[in-house]
Amino acid sequence: MVIIMKPGHTRKELDRAIQEMEKSGVNVMISRGSETTILGAEGNAAGIDMEKMEALPGVERVMRVSEPYKKANRKYHPDDSVVEIAPGMTVGGKKLLVVAGPCSVESEAQITGVAQSVKDAGAQALRGGAFKPRTSPYAFQGMGYAGLDLLEKARVHTGLPVVTELMSTDDIGYFAEHVDVIQVGARNMQNFDLLKRLGKVDKPILLKRGLSATIEEWLMSAEYILAGGNERVILCERGVRTFESFTRNTLDLSAVLAVKKQSHLPVVVDPSHASGQAWMVERLSLAAIAAGADGLIIEVHNDPVRALCDGQQSITPDQFGTLMVKVGQIAACVGREV
Amino acid sequence: MVIIMKPGHTRKELDRAIQEMEKSGVNVMISRGSETTILGAEGNAAGIDMEKMEALPGVERVMRVSEPYKKANRKYHPDDSVVEIAPGMTVGGKKLLVVAGPCSVESEAQITGVAQSVKDAGAQALRGGAFKPRTSPYAFQGMGYAGLDLLEKARVHTGLPVVTELMSTDDIGYFAEHVDVIQVGARNMQNFDLLKRLGKVDKPILLKRGLSATIEEWLMSAEYILAGGNERVILCERGVRTFESFTRNTLDLSAVLAVKKQSHLPVVVDPSHASGQAWMVERLSLAAIAAGADGLIIEVHNDPVRALCDGQQSITPDQFGTLMVKVGQIAACVGREV
Amino acid sequence: MVIIMKPGHTRKELDRAIQEMEKSGVNVMISRGSETTILGAEGNAAGIDMEKMEALPGVERVMRVSEPYKKANRKYHPDDSVVEIAPGMTVGGKKLLVVAGPCSVESEAQITGVAQSVKDAGAQALRGGAFKPRTSPYAFQGMGYAGLDLLEKARVHTGLPVVTELMSTDDIGYFAEHVDVIQVGARNMQNFDLLKRLGKVDKPILLKRGLSATIEEWLMSAEYILAGGNERVILCERGVRTFESFTRNTLDLSAVLAVKKQSHLPVVVDPSHASGQAWMVERLSLAAIAAGADGLIIEVHNDPVRALCDGQQSITPDQFGTLMVKVGQIAACVGREV
Amino acid sequence: MVIIMKPGHTRKELDRAIQEMEKSGVNVMISRGSETTILGAEGNAAGIDMEKMEALPGVERVMRVSEPYKKANRKYHPDDSVVEIAPGMTVGGKKLLVVAGPCSVESEAQITGVAQSVKDAGAQALRGGAFKPRTSPYAFQGMGYAGLDLLEKARVHTGLPVVTELMSTDDIGYFAEHVDVIQVGARNMQNFDLLKRLGKVDKPILLKRGLSATIEEWLMSAEYILAGGNERVILCERGVRTFESFTRNTLDLSAVLAVKKQSHLPVVVDPSHASGQAWMVERLSLAAIAAGADGLIIEVHNDPVRALCDGQQSITPDQFGTLMVKVGQIAACVGREV
Repeated sequence: MVIIMKPGHTRKELDRAIQEMEKSGVNVMISRGSETTILGAEGNAAGIDMEKMEALPGVERVMRVSEPYKKANRKYHPDDSVVEIAPGMTVGGKKLLVVAGPCSVESEAQITGVAQSVKDAGAQALRGGAFKPRTSPYAFQGMGYAGLDLLEKARVHTGLPVVTELMSTDDIGYFAEHVDVIQVGARNMQNFDLLKRLGKVDKPILLKRGLSATIEEWLMSAEYILAGGNERVILCERGVRTFESFTRNTLDLSAVLAVKKQSHLPVVVDPSHASGQAWMVERLSLAAIAAGADGLIIEVHNDPVRALCDGQQSITPDQFGTLMVKVGQIAACVGREV
Repeated sequence: MVIIMKPGHTRKELDRAIQEMEKSGVNVMISRGSETTILGAEGNAAGIDMEKMEALPGVERVMRVSEPYKKANRKYHPDDSVVEIAPGMTVGGKKLLVVAGPCSVESEAQITGVAQSVKDAGAQALRGGAFKPRTSPYAFQGMGYAGLDLLEKARVHTGLPVVTELMSTDDIGYFAEHVDVIQVGARNMQNFDLLKRLGKVDKPILLKRGLSATIEEWLMSAEYILAGGNERVILCERGVRTFESFTRNTLDLSAVLAVKKQSHLPVVVDPSHASGQAWMVERLSLAAIAAGADGLIIEVHNDPVRALCDGQQSITPDQFGTLMVKVGQIAACVGREV
Repeated sequence: MVIIMKPGHTRKELDRAIQEMEKSGVNVMISRGSETTILGAEGNAAGIDMEKMEALPGVERVMRVSEPYKKANRKYHPDDSVVEIAPGMTVGGKKLLVVAGPCSVESEAQITGVAQSVKDAGAQALRGGAFKPRTSPYAFQGMGYAGLDLLEKARVHTGLPVVTELMSTDDIGYFAEHVDVIQVGARNMQNFDLLKRLGKVDKPILLKRGLSATIEEWLMSAEYILAGGNERVILCERGVRTFESFTRNTLDLSAVLAVKKQSHLPVVVDPSHASGQAWMVERLSLAAIAAGADGLIIEVHNDPVRALCDGQQSITPDQFGTLMVKVGQIAACVGREV
Repeated sequence: MVIIMKPGHTRKELDRAIQEMEKSGVNVMISRGSETTILGAEGNAAGIDMEKMEALPGVERVMRVSEPYKKANRKYHPDDSVVEIAPGMTVGGKKLLVVAGPCSVESEAQITGVAQSVKDAGAQALRGGAFKPRTSPYAFQGMGYAGLDLLEKARVHTGLPVVTELMSTDDIGYFAEHVDVIQVGARNMQNFDLLKRLGKVDKPILLKRGLSATIEEWLMSAEYILAGGNERVILCERGVRTFESFTRNTLDLSAVLAVKKQSHLPVVVDPSHASGQAWMVERLSLAAIAAGADGLIIEVHNDPVRALCDGQQSITPDQFGTLMVKVGQIAACVGREV
């Protein structure tokens, strides 16, 4: 942390600023010129409250030098985290993780059918929503617990681990027992109560980026989970909100690069929600792998036209099969494999 | 809802689209030209799933004509909603509601002191956080239940009703008993689980606009609460996220106008969080009232420099006193009163 | 400017960074701790190229402390600039400047008619486009020179000075002779060639904020004009682009406050383009004045329905009359007058 | 175009709306239900002024169905445009176009050196700025005409065609004679005066996307050039402005897909300006090609640390060589070649 004092600050103001910094255990470096006084913190400045420093009299500006996240920070954990999501199945290593499945669980036939198809095409895990976050209270909200049961049946049938979204803290216990990867949706990325509790769960968490979350905020949300003791966090880029309306969101592939540089956590990409358009999914998947993503999460529906939600962004099992072949080729170019 | 069919669509595709619309009980108007076919829904189209229609073969484009919110819609509730927050105290009528208080409850002396000061200056309600949504898991998270106790003491002391943020569904019961207005923070605006439960609570809800929520999404979140049976929703504009970094957020006063036109719900403005800078609060408050806001929620701290959070955006009780006088003058110009 | 060196930087890298800073004539303050080295520039750091410093080996981070604009900076020009736009008519002082008129000049009857109406209602200057920046090459592009002639006729008829947009550097000479205030549109805010030439013109320039320009970029564009020698720059806030689509743009009234704090230049607000909706214009005008704007620029058309452009955001002369009365009342509350 | 009339509109209002549409030569389809009246335009609705229609009394809402661009529209030009930039060298076909070179021309040794290096590594064209758009009037503005001379020397030396930015309409004649591809920078994307003139020039135009331009606006700017008669337009995606500050801009690769679907024009990607960070350039280049871009434009400098601008985002010739090999591999996966 670097603090610039206001020109003409008093001695008392300077002392107070220094004191405030020292309280957090850092060493304060003082640099006084004829007009300017600069204070630098040496040591772990993460404990200094920037907002508080900014409110001090005589302080012109407070600039953070180090990142506010620790456990998620690659500085203190240089190697890539490889997260196990099922016995022998991981994400973050050489092998990519591809998760596929419908927006919502709709029926046993549907979910086991799609599960089998995507497995045959090479998917390693099944996605499917039982509890759906919908903008409208009048839209289909998911099958709930019945949907979770059907996901388990699909798992029994295919052996695919199950990734599904948790919306209520009340359901954490059940999810921790019956689900393989617990997804936190974009709209809950800063539901801090939920994050804290997931820090205590012994299951990997797929943390989607918020609709307009900065990379730093996203890593801070991961930090909430890590700080609670759960080290199995998988990040998921799913597009951010911009002024552009052609696509549902704007897929931010440079965020994948940024996150991989700043953090050791694995990052997967969701091209289906990012674009909202089925015809874009294949190409965006290839781009994501070329950029360095550790995996993909893709909406696949056996009958997109009849899907209860997100039909327009779901691809068919056949299209998914073609996509997997191409993903494999791109992966080989960048030292990865499917 | 209006649907444009693709040029060259088949008869079967057209029939299917019509059928799908009729399922929702609307009357379908068909308009066929030599190249173009347009379908219009007459009646309540809110039940038609746009995404599903978009995924149908032969459909080029689906355009919504009516708003997706009903209970929040001024069309079906032309008069302004006047929400009572304490016996005889309302928001949404001629009289403005001004809520003031510190970011966080810190101690009994602090909260009762600030409460008394803002009351003396004309505030009608007290704000203060006991549970604080913080980006960092290492930042001060609020005093929790002890903070709620102190808020109640401040209420006993001053008579001011208390507005405070709820972060966990577990606490709903306690809040419903001990708090006057339950605040939903920006980061929880689309925490649908929380919204649904607040629909069952007999307390007014102050619903902050999400960090980058559209006006429609904001009203849909209000709709979740209203649909549950709780009609006492107060909206709060607190700035949206843009590329500009001079201010913490960008206060969107045209949203106040838009919401008042589209909905009957009262809207208050939070200039403290919107700007993040104490020196901007007075002028933005005046602008908000001039624009037509029904009230203000303002951070006031007796000692901003020592505040445990948000010191840089808190004004002092003295500054708040001056602000109230000026707000009164502007209010008079636009037919309102403090 | 503050520079943080990378941990483990070499002596040579440090020397080079210091040298590079000293080249620009600043005094370099060096602060070395056991792990951290911080360099601070004392003196005018505006000449140091941040990007260049960032590219130096051993440099971790470069942070600017002072603003990159000089002539536009209130630090070096503490008093408000009062810009004269016609003999005895100014903007930036106690008296507000209200400019009104149609989107486009359409005919002599139209422009003189509107000019007379807005003058009667209290407007001090006339706006009207002769050269129109249109997104589509097929849309009405303005009457061109014939339109300028009609504006001059309206000026003769009413005495109102004329504000109109310049689009081509070829026309600068003509504008400098025949127009009272030369407007630079939002889309040309960073047309640096145009800005440089306007620095050599002896006419006030109304510089609109770019569609998604930061406050700093906007002031830097003003700096281009000021640096050329033309000190009569008037800034115009007209909304920025966000994800919200209810309004055409999002009016940013905190930008008015920010600019007035950072700069001495006058700022006016254009509520018509900001909102794109006639019914919002009055309230946003009141809010702008309450926030501290030095004036307004408003689209008024005698027959909005028949307007060749922007009819949906134009108010009628009668509505403008009502608006002026209310603006006067709000102005009085904040120590201004119309 | 589809128009929804207000409930309770009058017969006269309806007639007027129909008349207004018919004026533009379209056939109007009228669909009247018991509460709703919908008007649909059949034929070319591009000539109907949406804004004008919106301002008509009795009109509730105007929705465009077809795109406002014609010559840039793939509907009327289904095959990809292949643009020749030098004898035998094209962009838009199977072979990718890779343009490389420094931000600015600095000296003969620098530009011919870089030109030779990038040619050796496989670049087909040379970029380099002689006129530089700089946010600050005090920053290096480019060598101007002397820089153009050096670019020509580099062309003579290496045979590489030259891509460079035009900033002033005064220079169009000179550029048309001495430059191979004329670049329009992001800040001039809606400098309509410049676009119109480039429509009359017999040279290919590289049109960068504006800082926060929608895809539609970008294609409309291309339309200005095409409408003038110059059919050789190459689009360049270079990132858009969002709230994220880790990268300079947010690269929008779905825009590449969208543009290729809506238009026949070739699209190249500039990963250097999009990210602002040299270490991101390789991976974003691979992602761009995987997504379907027709080429790349990359900043390469022999000595990034000493570069007069953009050093932090320039890669070295060696890094460029490695990048080209990898780009070739990815290209092969998606049916393209370098």
